[in-house]
Amino acid sequence: MAKPTPLSGFPEWLPGEQLIEQQFLDRIRRTFELHGFTPIETRAVEPLDQLLRKGETSKEVYLLRRLQAAADGAAGAAAAEQLGLHFDLTVPFARYVLENAGKLQFPFRRYQIQKVWRGERPQEGRYREFRQADIDVVDRDTLAVHYDYELPIVAAEALAGLPIPAVVIHTSNRKLAQGFYQGLGIADPPAVLRIVDKLDKIGPARVVAELVDAVGLTDAQAKACLALAEIATDDASFADAVRRLGVDDPLLDEGLAELSAVMDAASALAPGLLKADLSIARGLDYYTGTVYEAKMRGFEKAGTVVAGGRYDNLAESGADRFPGTGISIGVSRILGLLFGAGVLSVSRQVPACVLVAVVAEERRAESDAVAAALRRRGIATEVAPAAARYGRQIRHADRRGIPYVWFPGEPGAPGEVKDIRSGDQAAADPATWEPPAEDRDPRVQGADPAG
Amino acid sequence: MAKPTPLSGFPEWLPGEQLIEQQFLDRIRRTFELHGFTPIETRAVEPLDQLLRKGETSKEVYLLRRLQAAADGAAGAAAAEQLGLHFDLTVPFARYVLENAGKLQFPFRRYQIQKVWRGERPQEGRYREFRQADIDVVDRDTLAVHYDYELPIVAAEALAGLPIPAVVIHTSNRKLAQGFYQGLGIADPPAVLRIVDKLDKIGPARVVAELVDAVGLTDAQAKACLALAEIATDDASFADAVRRLGVDDPLLDEGLAELSAVMDAASALAPGLLKADLSIARGLDYYTGTVYEAKMRGFEKAGTVVAGGRYDNLAESGADRFPGTGISIGVSRILGLLFGAGVLSVSRQVPACVLVAVVAEERRAESDAVAAALRRRGIATEVAPAAARYGRQIRHADRRGIPYVWFPGEPGAPGEVKDIRSGDQAAADPATWEPPAEDRDPRVQGADPAG
Repeated sequence: MAKPTPLSGFPEWLPGEQLIEQQFLDRIRRTFELHGFTPIETRAVEPLDQLLRKGETSKEVYLLRRLQAAADGAAGAAAAEQLGLHFDLTVPFARYVLENAGKLQFPFRRYQIQKVWRGERPQEGRYREFRQADIDVVDRDTLAVHYDYELPIVAAEALAGLPIPAVVIHTSNRKLAQGFYQGLGIADPPAVLRIVDKLDKIGPARVVAELVDAVGLTDAQAKACLALAEIATDDASFADAVRRLGVDDPLLDEGLAELSAVMDAASALAPGLLKADLSIARGLDYYTGTVYEAKMRGFEKAGTVVAGGRYDNLAESGADRFPGTGISIGVSRILGLLFGAGVLSVSRQVPACVLVAVVAEERRAESDAVAAALRRRGIATEVAPAAARYGRQIRHADRRGIPYVWFPGEPGAPGEVKDIRSGDQAAADPATWEPPAEDRDPRVQGADPAG
Repeated sequence: MAKPTPLSGFPEWLPGEQLIEQQFLDRIRRTFELHGFTPIETRAVEPLDQLLRKGETSKEVYLLRRLQAAADGAAGAAAAEQLGLHFDLTVPFARYVLENAGKLQFPFRRYQIQKVWRGERPQEGRYREFRQADIDVVDRDTLAVHYDYELPIVAAEALAGLPIPAVVIHTSNRKLAQGFYQGLGIADPPAVLRIVDKLDKIGPARVVAELVDAVGLTDAQAKACLALAEIATDDASFADAVRRLGVDDPLLDEGLAELSAVMDAASALAPGLLKADLSIARGLDYYTGTVYEAKMRGFEKAGTVVAGGRYDNLAESGADRFPGTGISIGVSRILGLLFGAGVLSVSRQVPACVLVAVVAEERRAESDAVAAALRRRGIATEVAPAAARYGRQIRHADRRGIPYVWFPGEPGAPGEVKDIRSGDQAAADPATWEPPAEDRDPRVQGADPAG
């Protein structure tokens, strides 16, 4: 066969990069578990009607078809029978909650770290397969507002331990914007939201122009919408700025109260983490209250790496209602950006800390025994692939960044272990030898740990 | 919307089950890393021509189609442009090796733990989405035979730490069977293999009958093939039994030598783990030498839970050749069987070891501070969802199996922690209190740890 080439939009990492992702995921997961979130995994597919239930992302779905299915059968299938790959983890989670409601304890805190797929057009250069790490809380009937500030704090804590640039989470509230537009007498708030959401891409002048031309606002209405979107504060003072715009509406009051509560609590618990930014709208149609969106410092143009919000109506069935709130870390996007910028490195390309040399092929069992003794004490160890001359076995370790090579002794005699970086070599017993703590596992570093 | 129902073939676990899977995966991964396997993840999709390259499984592929793609464009796409979900992790890994050969170090040891998909007909009641945990070693040009016994030993070590029934790995060698058939003068060895592979399903009489009727063997040839398939030994003595059948062929000699080397080494390193069983053929077309297959004791009828083998020709491009050998643990199948039998349990349904009660909603920050202090020392902690009366907050912990409830003290005074199983309650400092080691994390248990 011909040498295969990468598929655009389906990123794959090299071994060293994969070790970095693994450590990122371990750290994220550990933080989620420390906060009492329980793991859940949903199947990769949902019935198409589930995926299309909340509008906008429908155009990005990948449909599945069995290669051997009769073509006519597949073409005629109803949306409920057709399967598509999930495009996020929130829609499947809402479905999971409804399906298993009788077996779950509410409020239900879950984390979910999985791949999602979006059938983007190839030329857009965006990921079509990527991993997200989500936390959500859902409750029955009503969900306390304190989760709206708890979740971004947990996400930020998960990221704070990673060698990545700072992330500031911008937050707003859908009720606030929608109430404000209603108070201005605007008939189609969602249309306004969609245009305001482009503020940082097209700039204030074009936002006003589009609001007038495309949605039919008066110039005064359009300017008021822009003024609202330009409000951004590090604390709850945004509320005064909104009030000064002189718009009145009960839904606006509700949104102001919710966002103020979130900002007040977050300022106390995690100063500087949340920024009230009324330009934030979020594309997904299912959000109903608080919304979040964050970029990495120095990578603002590359887009959102953390996002989420409150969805009060996503999981509903008959009289059962499970409002939720959640936040999602775009793991693949963060890694793709940092790998692309060359700012992450790892101390070795394999888990092994030690390579045990093989004296002669017929004495491989002695090397296997040394390796087994080291592994029993948690030291990752590889045995040399062949009883080549020692120089070649050392090169095998060196090329992978394995720091130690172990030379088994003659039967009955102790072996020796060599730090191939310093050249230091000493007699050692595999039942007791310990590498320095910093050599045990591959070490991930950012180019600028202060970043 | 209507209450959703499960999709046949796409298993999903409840929270407690997911915690069990998580611990299984952690253990498996840890064992793989201790043996120096490095993690790799491949995208979920491959071009259809890659997936169809090695025959038999082609009928089980799920094809992808963008919902918004022009129907005519999709229908007319060549196999190289059509994408399908991978049905195993070996084919994608071979493609990854070819694609990245210039950036990898050989021999290359990798583990890969991912979902795979098979477009089975719904009525077959088999999984259409499931997780496998694979280890493989590939080398350039030739691959040493010692990997053929190393890999099943690693897989068995990974499983040995889990509370599951014993797994005995049956092993054979494709060259042995094929050489034997050639030595008998049989023209179509693969056709014989496919029938012999059904021995435990259809029995010896029907195997002989099918070999005569469907493949056109003589009665003597068919009986010799059956006699070969019925050889099963716990050590390398199978070779004498094969020799006694009086067939001669150079490929048979090669297969006997390889399988003897594997059995000799495995008997020394892991007595009782490998059983030479010449009825083992494995369905997948890419195997060329050693093959493995294992079932769980007590669940033999449910089929194979560990499988793999040597593939010398899967990763080839022009003059580049990367022979490999690998073994795969069917994680979803193992869990599905054990969950179905009700023999696995977990001590709680959530990671949290402690629930911090909330005295009053306006004093939630005090509870958050206690939780933060516990988490800093690695104790998973949840804060109560609402400042309900204490009885209700304790019930919140009890329903999830959280063993400890923490009551914050009045400002300045110490809090108290209650073991809600025993009712014991004592003053405690969140900066120093430690739960007993066995309560730190959810504990997974099998019904019969001796099993």
